[in-house]
Amino acid sequence: MSQQLDSSKIIAAMQSVLPKNELLIPLHEPVFGGNEWAYVKDCLDTGWVSSKGRYVEWFENQMTAFTGAKYAVAVVNGTAALHISLIVSGVAANDEVLLPTLTFVATANAVRYCGAVPHFIDSEEQTLGLDTAKLEDYLGRVARLEADDCINKYTGRRIKALIAMHTFGHPVDLDPLLELCKRYKLELVEDAAEALGSFYKSRHVGNFGRMSAISFNGNKIMTTGGGGVILTNEAPLAQMAKHLTTTAKLPHPWEYNHDYVGYNYRMPNLNAAVGCAQLEQLPGFLQAKRALADRYKQSFSQINGVTFLSEPGYAQSNYWLNALVLDKPDRAVRDLLLKITNDIGFMTRPCWTLLHRLPIYHDCPAMDLSMAEKLEDRIMNLPSSANLYVKEHD
Amino acid sequence: MSQQLDSSKIIAAMQSVLPKNELLIPLHEPVFGGNEWAYVKDCLDTGWVSSKGRYVEWFENQMTAFTGAKYAVAVVNGTAALHISLIVSGVAANDEVLLPTLTFVATANAVRYCGAVPHFIDSEEQTLGLDTAKLEDYLGRVARLEADDCINKYTGRRIKALIAMHTFGHPVDLDPLLELCKRYKLELVEDAAEALGSFYKSRHVGNFGRMSAISFNGNKIMTTGGGGVILTNEAPLAQMAKHLTTTAKLPHPWEYNHDYVGYNYRMPNLNAAVGCAQLEQLPGFLQAKRALADRYKQSFSQINGVTFLSEPGYAQSNYWLNALVLDKPDRAVRDLLLKITNDIGFMTRPCWTLLHRLPIYHDCPAMDLSMAEKLEDRIMNLPSSANLYVKEHD
Repeated sequence: MSQQLDSSKIIAAMQSVLPKNELLIPLHEPVFGGNEWAYVKDCLDTGWVSSKGRYVEWFENQMTAFTGAKYAVAVVNGTAALHISLIVSGVAANDEVLLPTLTFVATANAVRYCGAVPHFIDSEEQTLGLDTAKLEDYLGRVARLEADDCINKYTGRRIKALIAMHTFGHPVDLDPLLELCKRYKLELVEDAAEALGSFYKSRHVGNFGRMSAISFNGNKIMTTGGGGVILTNEAPLAQMAKHLTTTAKLPHPWEYNHDYVGYNYRMPNLNAAVGCAQLEQLPGFLQAKRALADRYKQSFSQINGVTFLSEPGYAQSNYWLNALVLDKPDRAVRDLLLKITNDIGFMTRPCWTLLHRLPIYHDCPAMDLSMAEKLEDRIMNLPSSANLYVKEHD
Repeated sequence: MSQQLDSSKIIAAMQSVLPKNELLIPLHEPVFGGNEWAYVKDCLDTGWVSSKGRYVEWFENQMTAFTGAKYAVAVVNGTAALHISLIVSGVAANDEVLLPTLTFVATANAVRYCGAVPHFIDSEEQTLGLDTAKLEDYLGRVARLEADDCINKYTGRRIKALIAMHTFGHPVDLDPLLELCKRYKLELVEDAAEALGSFYKSRHVGNFGRMSAISFNGNKIMTTGGGGVILTNEAPLAQMAKHLTTTAKLPHPWEYNHDYVGYNYRMPNLNAAVGCAQLEQLPGFLQAKRALADRYKQSFSQINGVTFLSEPGYAQSNYWLNALVLDKPDRAVRDLLLKITNDIGFMTRPCWTLLHRLPIYHDCPAMDLSMAEKLEDRIMNLPSSANLYVKEHD
């Protein structure tokens, strides 16, 4: 361990925040304390468990009410939400899509599902999200505009879209990014998988991209078992998203006609029922998670060599996964901290392996990724469940 | 209405089978009469609703026990099961995959998801499944073998696989088909989406293709809300299927490395819990549905111009959707019957629009499809829920 960094102080800081006498504290576990059972029982009692049923519609309505987006389409998971968002944004085979290398693999996989090519972008320190200033400089060198298309000078491919991922729930600075997308004719898609309950300048994330994706996987701030939602403020895009997620079947009482290669991505009613109950509790989850983050922040504030990742000034974050950032990149120190914390039952993890390092994405176009490469050796996620705040007071 | 066919007799025959005094009799609705509540509540109480949890494993074990397949991988739906089955069978971009034109659109969509090209095959009358004899003749003319590959002489593409779909639960004659696949080096994939509980020569379907897919959509013989399962008898294929359905993440306590472009297709534990309860009731569902089919068969046996679709002699069918087949193709008669029955609250439907007729698949290679084109104007599905048999005795 480096001289600047005292692992015992870090453990002590975590112990001061986390519940005592627990054998294992998960990274993030769901909390079911509301109407989950009542709503699910209603599904089973009425026989409406599958893709038709009122909970899906109710869930979509509640999602629009909470996020302020005009339209919501509930789907089987966040990956499916991103996949359809890209298709509806016009991403086609052989296009390039810009996305951060510092993200979960699903962001790039969704691009691949479209037959398109991921093009990796560097991140910045404040939010761990993509670095707009660096991207602007990069596009100035590699992109040229041709009619309504942005062309990669070196590959000849169209760069159709940019995916902004809100890392651990912290919104990227969207205004300059939107300006850049407009200038370069790029469709902005928000990968808000981790960011339900996060706001950029008082507006919920997912309202800035033409299409946005949120996840309700079991490790997210709220869950539907497996699930996701597509958000958009444009009616034709919402209609197309719904159409494509329901096998692109044309409405008719009995005939089966389909006008696109569609997908079987609709969220089942059973899962939507859980989602309705979870959404009712979301304000409480957010409060608890933000309070937990406050405690972490205070607790780590006196420790040299590390910084607790705080929301940027322009945003209110859901603090989905709390993160400790080492001042200096040091893989050995990071790994030692991961080992020590996991050994004593505090589940921690590093950020994802940078996508451009994976053999499956190694050959994709990429800008200089030196900041992400440093951040990779600096980040450790901390236990972040909403119930951790409450438990301390038990 | 044609002189040979008396619609009032058909209605009377349906009325003699179906429950009285119901405003609407659905085509197929699920029955929840077992441990669904208990198992789902257990999921919610333990917090294990997502992709980890014991119900998924239990469900997979129960599926292998019921079907006799060595391995089962639970996924989000039947389309996902088919998609992964094709990938694991080695289907790659620009390959051709043989499949019947008379099937649900998902069969062809799954081929497209692989970047491969659907190649449409005709059906035969007895099972409505693909016509092996006609296919044999066709392959003799259009295919040539080159080392281990079957090549389409006319397109130059490799024909990698053949999908056999068991229409409405009636197994196609698999022995001659397997022989043909072996001769032409084609991987057989069974689309058994509709055929849980159907047996070919005493062995459950899904054991004959190297990979097979079953669906648990809300309209199937049993449901998980949304769900499906991949079956195989080969350990390496099962491992690959599980790996690809779980984002192809390499095992590690905290690191995120992925060695394939994977998918987020794992069935959530919540849905598997419902599946476990449904599977316990499956023998009862099968008994009820077969008894209902018997009644239909008797009831229609005296009516000229129509035949009730019965299981082939070599098979035991689940009778997922009962089907009435007009002796002569007549779109007007079929549509009139659909209208009359739906108008009085008996939900009926035609078979799917033949896939080669859809603009999205119109340009795909196809053999002569004259039998399927005739069958399209002859088929009407009848209400088939397991609870219809019981209700009559209320």
